Amino acid sequence: MKIFGIDPGSVRTGYGCVERTGNRHHLVLCGSLAAPSSATFPERLQHIHAGLTALLADCRPDCVAVETIFHARNVRSALKLGHARGVALLAASEAGLSVYEYAPAEIKRAVAGYGRAEKPQIQQMVKLLLGLAATPAPHDVADALAVAICHLHNFTGPTAEAIRRHKPSKGVARSWREFRPS
Amino acid sequence: MKIFGIDPGSVRTGYGCVERTGNRHHLVLCGSLAAPSSATFPERLQHIHAGLTALLADCRPDCVAVETIFHARNVRSALKLGHARGVALLAASEAGLSVYEYAPAEIKRAVAGYGRAEKPQIQQMVKLLLGLAATPAPHDVADALAVAICHLHNFTGPTAEAIRRHKPSKGVARSWREFRPS
Repeated sequence: MKIFGIDPGSVRTGYGCVERTGNRHHLVLCGSLAAPSSATFPERLQHIHAGLTALLADCRPDCVAVETIFHARNVRSALKLGHARGVALLAASEAGLSVYEYAPAEIKRAVAGYGRAEKPQIQQMVKLLLGLAATPAPHDVADALAVAICHLHNFTGPTAEAIRRHKPSKGVARSWREFRPS
Repeated sequence: MKIFGIDPGSVRTGYGCVERTGNRHHLVLCGSLAAPSSATFPERLQHIHAGLTALLADCRPDCVAVETIFHARNVRSALKLGHARGVALLAASEAGLSVYEYAPAEIKRAVAGYGRAEKPQIQQMVKLLLGLAATPAPHDVADALAVAICHLHNFTGPTAEAIRRHKPSKGVARSWREFRPS
């Protein structure tokens, strides 16, 4: 099972593809997309969209995972983030992939075991879980890998088995939102 | 000069293309894009993007005009609107077109002569200015035509001439923001 995580942003968009083979996660690829600083806002969006489209075609993941965003510092930053996230979801949809959304606390819980973990803890745990030589940086890359790992935890392994067998208690499972192409 | 106006929305995206020949504006085409209600959110974005891409290829406008959005009811609606607006700007950028942004008050002033005009006044004035038989509906279509007309007012005719000749006073001209492909 191969998951492509995205952490969209209008300045920099992190991405990371994680595969599960047997009982181990391993990194397929990761990085970030940043348009040249001279680019206009529509050109930045085009850069993100074209980059992700090429990466998805290259990686051929089973699905895409992204963080839900209900919160943002303010309306203006929400709007900017929304633009970048819109073109990221578009690239996933055009590739015919299901998109899974996870709340930030759920991602932190899946990766660091604690819903209020700080950024450096997330980076450290992503490094450990994937057996990387270096800490994934910048944050956007670690965050993209974290959401991919979170999806793997939910859909494979003992947790997923438990969720499938038991009707999960409210707020515990089904913390994700699924968009499956119709 | 042919302008393609867009009023993006995640449920419905209005569009309208207006051409100026001599001293008159006339309608090239207008309408709205709405994905089937069964579509997932990423599929809605794909519907908007594919629709606008086809329309821009068909219309071959000189540029695209959209409303700026600094305000929104709340962060959540700003996020949703941002997604739709992101894929609209992407379609314009992919078509190699400059994008001009206008503040809502500026559009209302250009079309109805009053920055706080209500929706029905805008619809009525768009109908009059383009010599239409019926009022453009829904609102999204009238709003898309209004922003296209606003751009024509700014870039052609006596107003544009005056702006070009005089250094405009603060807040009067340059109310638009331009994104020209580099």
